[in-house]
Amino acid sequence: MSIQYKQLYLHQRPIGNTTDDDVRMRTVNVDELADGQLLIKNDYFSLDPAIRGWMSAEPNYMPPIGLGEVVRSSTVGTVVESKHSDFAVGDQVYGLNGWEEYSLSDGYFLTKVPADNKFPLHYYLSIFGAVGLTAYFGITDSAELKAGDTLLMSAAAGAVGSLGGQLAKNMGCRVVGLAGTDEKCQWLKDELGFDGVINYKTESGNLEAAIRAECPDGVDVFFDNVGGETLDAALLNLRDNARIVFCGSISSYNASEPVPGPYNYWQILAKNAVVKGFLVSAYFDRFESGAAALAELLVDEKIDFKYQIVEGFDNTLSAFHKLFDGSNTGKLMLKV
Amino acid sequence: MSIQYKQLYLHQRPIGNTTDDDVRMRTVNVDELADGQLLIKNDYFSLDPAIRGWMSAEPNYMPPIGLGEVVRSSTVGTVVESKHSDFAVGDQVYGLNGWEEYSLSDGYFLTKVPADNKFPLHYYLSIFGAVGLTAYFGITDSAELKAGDTLLMSAAAGAVGSLGGQLAKNMGCRVVGLAGTDEKCQWLKDELGFDGVINYKTESGNLEAAIRAECPDGVDVFFDNVGGETLDAALLNLRDNARIVFCGSISSYNASEPVPGPYNYWQILAKNAVVKGFLVSAYFDRFESGAAALAELLVDEKIDFKYQIVEGFDNTLSAFHKLFDGSNTGKLMLKV
Repeated sequence: MSIQYKQLYLHQRPIGNTTDDDVRMRTVNVDELADGQLLIKNDYFSLDPAIRGWMSAEPNYMPPIGLGEVVRSSTVGTVVESKHSDFAVGDQVYGLNGWEEYSLSDGYFLTKVPADNKFPLHYYLSIFGAVGLTAYFGITDSAELKAGDTLLMSAAAGAVGSLGGQLAKNMGCRVVGLAGTDEKCQWLKDELGFDGVINYKTESGNLEAAIRAECPDGVDVFFDNVGGETLDAALLNLRDNARIVFCGSISSYNASEPVPGPYNYWQILAKNAVVKGFLVSAYFDRFESGAAALAELLVDEKIDFKYQIVEGFDNTLSAFHKLFDGSNTGKLMLKV
Repeated sequence: MSIQYKQLYLHQRPIGNTTDDDVRMRTVNVDELADGQLLIKNDYFSLDPAIRGWMSAEPNYMPPIGLGEVVRSSTVGTVVESKHSDFAVGDQVYGLNGWEEYSLSDGYFLTKVPADNKFPLHYYLSIFGAVGLTAYFGITDSAELKAGDTLLMSAAAGAVGSLGGQLAKNMGCRVVGLAGTDEKCQWLKDELGFDGVINYKTESGNLEAAIRAECPDGVDVFFDNVGGETLDAALLNLRDNARIVFCGSISSYNASEPVPGPYNYWQILAKNAVVKGFLVSAYFDRFESGAAALAELLVDEKIDFKYQIVEGFDNTLSAFHKLFDGSNTGKLMLKV
């Protein structure tokens, strides 16, 4: 065998948005596998805000991507060569690989798509992957929600937010979502059944009052994917004993200056509230049951799931930018 | 009856440190009690950082002190007149009254010192009051500490910090304290048995490394009374699944500009950590058992308790300043 393929690697650490100078392309050859290795032809890349965090120099629950290393990303693909006893040619597999047409793997943290899978392959990067499991465990466990609670969701039209909001609706909660366009807000309300929606762009500068209008009795749980102004406004609307599930902070991932924490941090004390850092990896031993629960909800049509697939390896970086300019809805992936 | 007495009232909201222009003195008369009222001759005022927060305009887990109103404070004193069926002349009582020589009360939130009390009266403002109970429930409940954990305590020579650190030592934890003078650090180490101490003033600018040196395996629980630079440095030393008991933020109480939250807020997510706002009032139904447990620890000499009493009503405000310039050790009270 001899396979030549393209990789996108980190050339320098981005300042602000990731540019073509930061992430460059190269072509590599694989001539032979070592014992215990396998070669995966990647079908889809997962494009996630977290990847931007890994491009920075600071360790960030995972080590930074090294300069010269392939950009880290979840992928799903098909085994095309194997010298690994657990994986055979033709197996479909998903795991943490990178932005490259093929991935060499030693099987570490690689999972097989079940042989009887009836769902599209890319579901293993989305609803059965980190995004779906984040929404699932964030809402059904970390948030400590009970029926009748008011949930405020930021980035509600995003992959985690839209799923999480529906899961909370299924639990009997009142769900209010923040999104950045009227179209997204309309979708949340009309298609997903959100009880209230706020366009955080048109309401910028007035978010505290806008949240109060939609959550007149206050917020029991704020599911925070965004940070920044939204978090500060949410903090001023907490009920006593509120929970903040701190799942992400997309407003600051491209920041080139240190970003202060919320100005209203004091409200955490004043409201006897709790901020819970959320890493889906903490639920690793429950991933299988979480994915099974989500599959059942999908089959029963109790959750609707939106995704966007951009085609073409060469479009990876431009597709990645959609995460930060508000132009995508639902889970973003790239079809290689 | 006719009693004339002095009060300190809020004339204007302080900007920065509280001045004589902000808190002024006046003399009032009480000629007669209404039915259901009692008159308390105050023996001691409790001087607490929280009082500064109540002087600001923003509601802050309690309503702000109104302009013209007596400065709110816990006091302990003796009933000198009573038209209230539950209280008799000579009863010793404590509760939320104010900086005044006498307090008129309707008995609301007023508690009697037990008739068989063997402790100094001012203990009901300190170790059996909010300070002691804050340390007790903060450490034994909110912090979720187990033997072998590393506790980092800020304002460790303060009333809550010194008690909390000892309680954690009794639970088998490793305890590291931050204080502002070498004398305080020495006291924590030599007298209270703290495992490590850091002078946050001499280590300013180097706190992250100083904490790392004293907590090489990281911090399981940061008990935060201070906020600001200390909190930011602690966040960079958290172990996975750490807890931050957010008990106070004395570094910002006198701020005249909005104070940002911690720059390292992201570490809460990265370490799967939890920030728990702590209000002792949430434990109201367990106050009695908490005070009983503390009394037993005192009698068994398992905790040492330091306090400072300034004498003279006219010295109330100057004594209050000691809380913010680092010149007091232990619980600060004023003897009227």
